[in-house]
Formats: sequence, structure tokens, C-alpha cells
Amino acid sequence: MLLLWKPVVTHLDDETRQYIQTHALHDHYVAIFLLSDDKASEVYVGLKSKKAKMLGLYADIILGKDWSREEVLEEIHRHNHDEKCVGIMIQLPVASHLKKYQMDLINAIIPEKDIDGLGAMTFGLSAFGSNDFLGATPKASLEILKYYQMDDFSWKVVTIIGRSNLIGKPLTIELIKRGATVITCNSKTDQAFLQQALATSQYIFSATGQKHLINETLLSEKICIQYQNHIPLSQKILVDIGRGHDEGGAYGDIDWKYYEDKVQGVTPVPGGVGPVTVSCLFHNIVS
Amino acid sequence: MLLLWKPVVTHLDDETRQYIQTHALHDHYVAIFLLSDDKASEVYVGLKSKKAKMLGLYADIILGKDWSREEVLEEIHRHNHDEKCVGIMIQLPVASHLKKYQMDLINAIIPEKDIDGLGAMTFGLSAFGSNDFLGATPKASLEILKYYQMDDFSWKVVTIIGRSNLIGKPLTIELIKRGATVITCNSKTDQAFLQQALATSQYIFSATGQKHLINETLLSEKICIQYQNHIPLSQKILVDIGRGHDEGGAYGDIDWKYYEDKVQGVTPVPGGVGPVTVSCLFHNIVS
Repeated sequence: MLLLWKPVVTHLDDETRQYIQTHALHDHYVAIFLLSDDKASEVYVGLKSKKAKMLGLYADIILGKDWSREEVLEEIHRHNHDEKCVGIMIQLPVASHLKKYQMDLINAIIPEKDIDGLGAMTFGLSAFGSNDFLGATPKASLEILKYYQMDDFSWKVVTIIGRSNLIGKPLTIELIKRGATVITCNSKTDQAFLQQALATSQYIFSATGQKHLINETLLSEKICIQYQNHIPLSQKILVDIGRGHDEGGAYGDIDWKYYEDKVQGVTPVPGGVGPVTVSCLFHNIVS
Repeated sequence: MLLLWKPVVTHLDDETRQYIQTHALHDHYVAIFLLSDDKASEVYVGLKSKKAKMLGLYADIILGKDWSREEVLEEIHRHNHDEKCVGIMIQLPVASHLKKYQMDLINAIIPEKDIDGLGAMTFGLSAFGSNDFLGATPKASLEILKYYQMDDFSWKVVTIIGRSNLIGKPLTIELIKRGATVITCNSKTDQAFLQQALATSQYIFSATGQKHLINETLLSEKICIQYQNHIPLSQKILVDIGRGHDEGGAYGDIDWKYYEDKVQGVTPVPGGVGPVTVSCLFHNIVS
């Protein structure tokens, strides 16, 4: 079964819109820092701004590509203290002169307004169970499964491929919290072991950007049954958080066309986790 | 081979003592909050105080079992700002009226002085690579391996049993950072899967408190060889972070007497990770 983005986005946006209405937040705003002249970043900021508007919220786009570290910090502090501001995010990447301060800048956002969920304090609080906050991308991958009622991780084995601060680490901790046994793999994981991990897992999250890393030669029913404690392909749920682009268009980590009719669920690229991410960014205002 | 605590403690304490001398910290201090009348806590605080003295540092034991949340916070802030204070720790558990604020109190310690490493910010900063800080207990389990030159985790498969904020979660993230493929198991992990995980791992860290959970019936050469991608017992390194006590004395998660002559390394209980922990607490002043 294909796990498609559209109904998930509709559902999440409805919840966010309703929250904004109920709490009379129409004169509130989110602050989006654009601190580079990266073209792709401009496009993303535009999409976020448009989504905010759709949800009944104003997006204050703060252009500061030439600002010093101190100027950016001052502006962040201002929004931290402005009670009309319900969320703050910094579009990455930042300009090269700010690169070495990137983590400092993100950590300057107070956890309550860190809707991107990239701050160290935000991650720590969530990891230790003080709140249930998740960054937009890992949240998107779990909201899709929640919508399709495939998010009971207790007693389950999960493989996560990737160990980034953005996805691999927070997803690992979140699924540990939810009672899963989690196997976190990376580029240094032996291929034979990876194959075994995939065979014995019910859930697979992949976030490498490597085109169709998961394909018939790595994961098939024929391969699975060679391993003890394997989970049949028909019970597996595959979530693709990878993305890349070539002459054939957007691609992900998973050759979803091969798995579409064979597994319990698979998110395609394009059309899976990606489009849910922006909705999750704003849904983080709700939770 | 048994990985014993003594030379590790000597080595770590030497480094800490030297750091204190070089940086002329003899008139500096660590603040230890004792916020309950728990007898065991009093003993631990006494041991820590004694160790501090041995290292050439003064331990200021702050007795506040009847204090309100605000009074404790005020005192923490005072030590946060006192430049003579090189570390702050709260002995757990706190008194019952403070229990619900426990995380708040810990998070009030600034990361630079959080030598116990229990704060959310401390964990987040380390997870995201801003520093290399580790709480005393996970640090102890890795310092032992470092001393015996068994701490190259790159390309290795590691199983961690336990998912606590104190050990399981920080150890998982730390080993992911160091390039390991990490399998984090918990009480909901299927026994057959656990057996397979242990068979295919080179490193095993166990922190459950369940007496001799890892024994011949779960992990033996005969069991290992049944699994693909298994690591022979002779190459395995077992680290016991569990502890309990019964009429027979202190015990750990691992039946180390069975493994002593069969594996590359195993830490016993008593005499392994436990006694290294206090040294790591103070060694965190160095790093």
C-alpha cells in the first residue's frame, strides 16, 4: 500500500487551522530567518510563508544575510520575548560567515518557539521526556504512519538508516521512547549486517539520499526468509526520508515501485514524507 | 579478560588531579546538593566529597531537603554565577515534595557546570556534536574500554540493553556519533531477537539491573554460531552497567564468571563500571 501525503497534510493543516482560530492567533506570527542568498532557501521560505497564510497565520520573513552573529542574536531575542510570536525558525543553510555560529543561533531560540526542533535544548527536553516535541522532518515521517494507523512501535523492531542531527538521532530517541527496539545504521554499517537488520525489522526508515539504496537486491522476500526472526515483506512498513534529484526527477532511498504491492506500507518519493514536513513545522505550534 | 576498575580510576584521577594543579583550582569547589534524607544518598555524597578532597578540590555539600523549588533554584543560580564553582550536581533522588521539579532543577544547572551530565541542554549539545560531554555513568563504561584500548567503535555493531535517560539514551547517541551501528533493546524486546542481537554484536552494554540476564542460556558460542553475521564470543566485549544487591552481595546484568575466559573483555560487578563512575564525575571538570 502506498502511504500518500495528501490526506495527512489535510488532516494536520485542519488541526493547525482550528488551533489558530480557537486561540485567536490570527494577529500572531511566525518569524522565519533567511540568512543567505541561497536560491533554494528562498523557494522554501516562500512555500512556508504561503502555508502560514493558508493556516491563518502571518509569516514574518526576516532577511539578514549580511548580518553579524550579534545582530542575528539580538533579533532572535526580540522574537523570543514577543508574545505575538508563536514560532521561530532559521532557514538552513546560513551564509558562510555565519556558518560557524549556526548551532549557537539555533540554540538561542527558546524551546517553546523552536518549531523546527533543531535546538539542543529542544532535543534534550524531548529525549528526556519533559515534552513530546519532534522536529518537522522526523515528525512528518511519524505523522504519516499515525494517519494510516501504523504507528504502534511497542515490541517492534525498527531499522533507521542515517544518523544526522536532523533525522537519524531524533528519530532513534523518539522510537526508543515509544518502546521500539531500534537498530541505527550508517554509512559504516557492513552490508551483510544491514541486510539482516532490514530482514528482521518491521519498520524501516531511510534517510541517506542514496538513490534507491533499498531495492530488490538488498530487501526481498527471498532474502528475508534466509534470516532467523525475519519479518515477512507483507508486514513491513517502509518510510523514505531520503531525497535527491537527477535527470529523471526527484528520487528517494527506496525503490517504492518494487515494494508498492508487496509491503504493508511504503511512502513514495516524490509524494510521501517531503510534502508533510511543512505542515508539521506549523503543527508544532499546536503541540 | 576481566576489565577491572582500579588502573582506570588511577589514570582518570591522575588526569583530574593534574588539571586541578595546573589550573590552580585548589581554592575552587564543586557544589553537591543533598535534597533528601535518603541514607544511601548521604553515603554517596560522602564518597564524592572524599574523592574531591583526594583530588585537591573542595566539595561544598549543600543540605536543602526542606527547601522549596524556588530556594533550590536560587542556590543553583548562585553557584552557576560563582566563578570559583567548577561543577554542580544534585544527588538523586530528591525529597518527595521536589520530585515533580527534579528535571527543572537539573536543567537550571548551566551545561558548563553540569558534571553529572543529566541536563537536557547538556545532552542536546553533546548529541548534536557541539561538545563531547558524557554523563558520569555512560562515560565510565567508555573510559574503561578506552583504558584497555578496546574503544574503536567504527564499523562495529553494538547492542545496548536499557533505555534510561541516565544510561541507555546517552550511550546510544554517543556510540552512533562514534560510528557504531547501534541496536538499542529494552524490556519489550522479543527474547529471540535479543539473542540474535547479542550474537551479531561485538560490543554489549547492559543496564537493566536484572541479575545475570546475560548468561550461558542467552549468549554462548553454541548459540552465536546459529546466526548469520555472528561475532565469535572470543571477539566480544561485554560491559555491565547493571547493579543490584541480594544476600549473595552485589550483582550485575552479566554472569561474568562464565565469560571471563571466553570473551575479549568483560567488566565484572562488583569491580567494573561502578567504581569508575565517581572518578568520571570529577574528570568531567577536565573535559
